[in-house]
Parts: sequence; structure tokens; C-alpha cells
Amino acid sequence: MQALSHLAQDIASAKEQGRYRTYLNLERRAETAPQAVLHAADGPREIIVWCSNDYLSLSHHPTVIDAVADAVRGVGLGTGGARSISGTSTFHEDLEAELASLYRKERALLFSTGFAANDTTLSVLGRRIPGLVIFSDELNHASIIQGVRNSGAQKRIFRHNDTGHLRKLLEETDPDVPKLVAFESLYSMEGDFSPIREIVDIAEEFGALTYLDEIHSVGIYGEEGSGYAEEQGVRDRITVFQGGFGKGLGGAGGYIAGPASVIDSVRTFAAPFVFSTSAPAPLVAGALSALRLVRHDSTQRDLPRARASELKEGLAARGIPVISRDSHVVPVLVGDPHRNKEVSALLLGDHGIYVQPVNAPTVPEGTERLRVTPTSRHTAEDVQVFVEALDTVWSAAGLPRSR
Amino acid sequence: MQALSHLAQDIASAKEQGRYRTYLNLERRAETAPQAVLHAADGPREIIVWCSNDYLSLSHHPTVIDAVADAVRGVGLGTGGARSISGTSTFHEDLEAELASLYRKERALLFSTGFAANDTTLSVLGRRIPGLVIFSDELNHASIIQGVRNSGAQKRIFRHNDTGHLRKLLEETDPDVPKLVAFESLYSMEGDFSPIREIVDIAEEFGALTYLDEIHSVGIYGEEGSGYAEEQGVRDRITVFQGGFGKGLGGAGGYIAGPASVIDSVRTFAAPFVFSTSAPAPLVAGALSALRLVRHDSTQRDLPRARASELKEGLAARGIPVISRDSHVVPVLVGDPHRNKEVSALLLGDHGIYVQPVNAPTVPEGTERLRVTPTSRHTAEDVQVFVEALDTVWSAAGLPRSR
Repeated sequence: MQALSHLAQDIASAKEQGRYRTYLNLERRAETAPQAVLHAADGPREIIVWCSNDYLSLSHHPTVIDAVADAVRGVGLGTGGARSISGTSTFHEDLEAELASLYRKERALLFSTGFAANDTTLSVLGRRIPGLVIFSDELNHASIIQGVRNSGAQKRIFRHNDTGHLRKLLEETDPDVPKLVAFESLYSMEGDFSPIREIVDIAEEFGALTYLDEIHSVGIYGEEGSGYAEEQGVRDRITVFQGGFGKGLGGAGGYIAGPASVIDSVRTFAAPFVFSTSAPAPLVAGALSALRLVRHDSTQRDLPRARASELKEGLAARGIPVISRDSHVVPVLVGDPHRNKEVSALLLGDHGIYVQPVNAPTVPEGTERLRVTPTSRHTAEDVQVFVEALDTVWSAAGLPRSR
Repeated sequence: MQALSHLAQDIASAKEQGRYRTYLNLERRAETAPQAVLHAADGPREIIVWCSNDYLSLSHHPTVIDAVADAVRGVGLGTGGARSISGTSTFHEDLEAELASLYRKERALLFSTGFAANDTTLSVLGRRIPGLVIFSDELNHASIIQGVRNSGAQKRIFRHNDTGHLRKLLEETDPDVPKLVAFESLYSMEGDFSPIREIVDIAEEFGALTYLDEIHSVGIYGEEGSGYAEEQGVRDRITVFQGGFGKGLGGAGGYIAGPASVIDSVRTFAAPFVFSTSAPAPLVAGALSALRLVRHDSTQRDLPRARASELKEGLAARGIPVISRDSHVVPVLVGDPHRNKEVSALLLGDHGIYVQPVNAPTVPEGTERLRVTPTSRHTAEDVQVFVEALDTVWSAAGLPRSR
């Protein structure tokens, strides 16, 4: 049909632009991660994964695995309904209580994905608070952008982490309208932190609510592992936290924690929340187990940061440019989509190292990068091997060095 | 803050209108479902659940449970990334291949929820097919409505299951613009089937694509359990199927199956798909196991329909009105939100029977109902007990009988 041939042309042009995504079929193994078996057209092959968000390797932690297996044996898999129609269990209530307690908020709420948590919550806030103006960092995640757009609220985009620009936009806005500042603590494609304390100071000065996405920092920062706001001592000053279980907590799904009025609005007025089957109890049990592990035992927490420091030192010594040195996420700047794919292919083909190239439109053109993520199970030796391999590939690809 | 007090007022008024949702904390048990333990303020209590979408009790099937437990022990819980960044496994590829084969389509794609499958796919089709007009049944699910709205496409709403009205709207539309008819096979709040064959005939006559939501019929209808289109012999004539694992398949998550061009468009252009962590392998393994069970063994498939027939007969004999007699979903018409809550409360309080009342805005005002869903584990005796209990409660509430 004519309509479908339109779509096919679309895809053909995405392929020409190097924007078509291919998926690697990986057989992960709980016992040997980050090693995995790549199932490619020419057969299976052992590789090491260097681009997973499972920062603390909690997806493979025996306690988490036992929690999932015990739950499925005890209560089965799916809940059979939305939260309000037979889809709420003790697991769901316990996990929400744990999150509320961790973030020092009145209530918390679970979502099937972190994307849905951002999209749904921001949509509802914009639609239910008349006149709301949302101030949003220009590098906010696609889920925040979509939520702001779907909210129908007026938006003001401030330059990335630019508190001067945020202040200017706030000053230009009617003092009497309700305001919300939406931002992230750790921008996962940049690897940099936001100036949370300054942003909170400014938001309070202008009477704005704050909405903070901690999805890439939960489990890793703060004494209780709630995220970077806790580490910065401003946990109590954020209005609504968003986060999820799919990164450092080793599972899947998202959450928000905040005032009862916010949680109740989402529970009542958000179609994607109201009309979705709730998360399976085994998944919720796994999340609860992971959250309690990071909250009460900080021994694993420093490992990805330690490996990231070694990695950044190794790359700096070889003049390989890194976009930000702030966090446990290490984005290596390649700056060209085809070179980026080439470097990634050489790493995989010659060295059995898997790092997915990140190209536009996910990141701005000219800033194409390899987003490298050490996890708690990568060893100091793994880091050395990685640095040597990238060094070799960098030369082979004729990429510039920064020294 | 002023903004939050707005939300609080919103909630107060939802409570006054009887629209505030309370959740029952249920401890389901794999071995004894549909019996469950209700954890209420005054302590735990045994009840029987009569409003779950786990129609085939597959969430409790030993084969499904083993598949989940084996997968989590083998490969861990979360995948650690989106499909394109280390988040694709053999489980994901196998499940998509199984779905494509079941629906006789080129490709299939997994989503974290059925809601996201509808919302995301329809959004992309509307945005990527210039001039697309979407014809949508007025009782389509909230996720279809949201997808059509987010697509930005022109929409024409046809009266529920009214093929004459659909034809009229198609006749009134420019013959040269691309068209898509979006509908469901089984409307889960009505319990009625759509006239799929007639709708497909009309769509083909006008050169329109068809998008069919089979989420409440998959597993239960058709020789291979793919849904009601298969039972009606029109499986090969539907352009895109949508479905999910959270109802008859006992798990969670959604899917689409269709032409490669449609699947590729979603994979490439849909932010919620591209930027969401993929489903945990244990969940995918459970879904694959459930799908293969229904596809190759039809012994359980007829049970919910048989129990539903007995239920409808029993209610008819007592003059208790049922909205539709088509399917395994039995919606009992109460017609008033407060009476509806009262009947539900009496069933639970006096008889240990849990049926959630469904009020506006989920269903039109004046058609408030109890949506009763027999599953494969409800016995003929359970049905008799239910009918007797509802008969007693119906009289106590002074509700009218239809004879």
C-alpha cells in the first residue's frame, strides 16, 4: 500500500544517514557477567560488555535472583490487572513504602518503565496545574521532553546546566504563575552532574517546584544510595523525585516519590497509569531486594566510580578525549557517526569489547560518542585491557588525540 | 505551595464524585488462585478473585513459573539497557519470532506494556504517514485514544461496532489520503466482539490499513490462540496486530506484529521504544513459555468461556442484567456509581467475593458495572456460589431485575 511504502522510504533514508539501529543478540550469564556470548550471523562468540547500565551488577546478585525466583514460585508471574483492579500486592505496597521512606516523601508510585514515569507524571502536572510553566534543561532525556510536550504546559528551555540562564528565564516569567524546574542529577549521555544545590536555591527563590530525575544515580550516590541529591545534602528540598530500577538497581521499571497530592493526581488522572497492568510481583520483589541491598550495604557502591577513575586516567594519559569527568559514566568523544561505528566495530571485532556507538539524533551532531560504563564486576585489569584496545583502535582509525 | 494545593482540591473533588480509586492489597498464591489473601486494615482474610484478567491462570502455570525461575538464575534480572544498547537477548529475539510466526507477519516488536504498544505505534504511524486519517471506534481503549491523539493525525470516530457509520465516514473522506481503521476484537469493558470480518471488508474496499487490538482475546480464541481474528478466519487480512502478555497469557508487556516497514518505523522513530530499557529476560521467557503453551495445547482455552456461559445462564435465570453475552467477559449492569460500590462492598464483606466496581469515567455514566471474569481455575461450583451471592446482594441493594 502507498502508506506503507512511505514508511519504507523513511527507513531507507534513516539507513543512508547511519541512523538505523541494529541490535546485538547477547546471551548474558549471571555468573560470568560482564562477559557474555554474542550470537552473530557467523556463530557465537565470547565478548565483554562495556555499555550496560547495570552499574552495580545487581541483575546478577544472588539475593536479587533469589527474591525473583521465590516470588514467582510463591505468587506467580503477572498480577492480572491494573493497580485498582486486583493488581496490587503486598510487594507493590512494600516497595512504594520503601521508596517513600528512602526519599523522605509522603508517597511513592511505581511505573512499568522510567520513560512512563517521566512522561506520565509531567503530563499530569502540566494538565492539572492551571498556568504551569515548566523550565526544562535542554539536555533532558527524551521521556522528560515528551512529558513536557504532552502536558500542554508552557515550556522554557534553559541551556544545559546553566543556572544563569535558568534565573534569567525565571525572572522573565510572571511571578504569580506556578512554575516547575525539571532536570536530571546525572546526564547519562554526558556523564556530568547538574548543579543541584544551585538549581534548588534558585527554584526556592522563585517559588518553583522541582522535579529531579535520578535514574542514573540511584544506588550509586548518597549514603543510602538514593542518588546525587542526597550526596549533595538537598534530598529534602526536591519536590518530586523520579528514578527507576533498570540501571544501577539491575531490574526494570520506574518510580516517582513526592507529596501525596502529586502521587494522587497521577493515580487518578493519568490514563497510562490507571489503565496499565501493574508490574509482575517477581519484578517488584527483585526491585525491593536490590533497593534494600544498596540502602543498607554500601560496599559495592564505590566500585563503578573507582573503575571509572582508572579508566579516565588511562584515557587521559593516551590523549583520548572524554566529554565529562564527573561521574561513573565515561563518554569518549569521537565526533563523527561513521568513525564512531568504525571504532565500535573494531573494538568488537578485534578485541571482543562491546561498546555501542551513540550517534545523532540521540546526541547532537558532531558529538558522536562511545558511552563507556564500568560496572562493579569490571576489574582493574579489565580497565587496562580496555584502554590498550581503545588506544590501538584509536590509532587505526586515525582519530585525533587531545594532547 | 499554591500549585500543590490545586492538585489537592482536584483530588478532593474526585473523592466527592466517587472517582477516587482505592487499591486492595492482595496476596495471591500460585497454588490456590483464584483464592487470595486480602490484607485489609482489620487483618488478613481469604477471598476469591472474580475480576482478574489472568483468564487462563497462566501466571500460576508450573511451566511458566519454571521458565521465569530458570531464566533469572541463568541470565539475571534486568537487561541493563535499551534494545539497541546491550538490551537484546536470545529471549527477546525468540519471542518476537514466535509472535511474527503466530500472526503470519513479517516482524513483531515487544513493549513494556500494552498501553505503550498502542500509544507508541499509533503515534508513529500518524506522524510518519503524511495525511493519514485514523478511523477509531468510539469505545477504543484509553491507550488507542492517547495514541491517536499523540499522532497528530486527523481522526474520525465511528459509533461502537457500527459498520454503517464507519462506511459513511470513509465515503466522506478524500479517496486519495492514506487511511487506517483502529479497533479492538473484544471490548473488555463491554464483553462484546467487533464485527471484524465486515470491518476488514470495508477497510479493503476503501484501501485502508487495519490496526487490531487483540489484547483481551489472545490465548483464548482461534485454533492457535492468536485471537478472535484467527477464529473469524481473517488473520491474514489485518495489517497490524496489537496484543499483550498481561491478560490471558499471565505475564506483563505488550507487542505488535505487522509489516517490516511498520516495525522498523517504531524501532527507529518512537522515543518511548528507543529510549526504554528492554523487558527483563525472565519476563520475556515467561511470556514465550505461555505463548507456546496456548499455541500448542488448547485444553485450557475453553474453560473461561464454559464458566462464562454458566455464569450468564445463572444470572439470566435470576433477571440480573448483563451488558453483552458475546465473550468470556461478563459485565453486570448496575447503572449507578454508589450502588455499584455498595454491591461490590457487600459481595466482598458478606461473601468474600472480590469484583471491582467500574465507574465513570472508565465507562459512560449510567452504565456503571461489575466486570466479572471467570478464569480457567474457577469451577462450576464457584460459579454457582457467585450467582447465589450476587442474587442475595442484588435484592439487598434493591436493584431492578430484567424479567
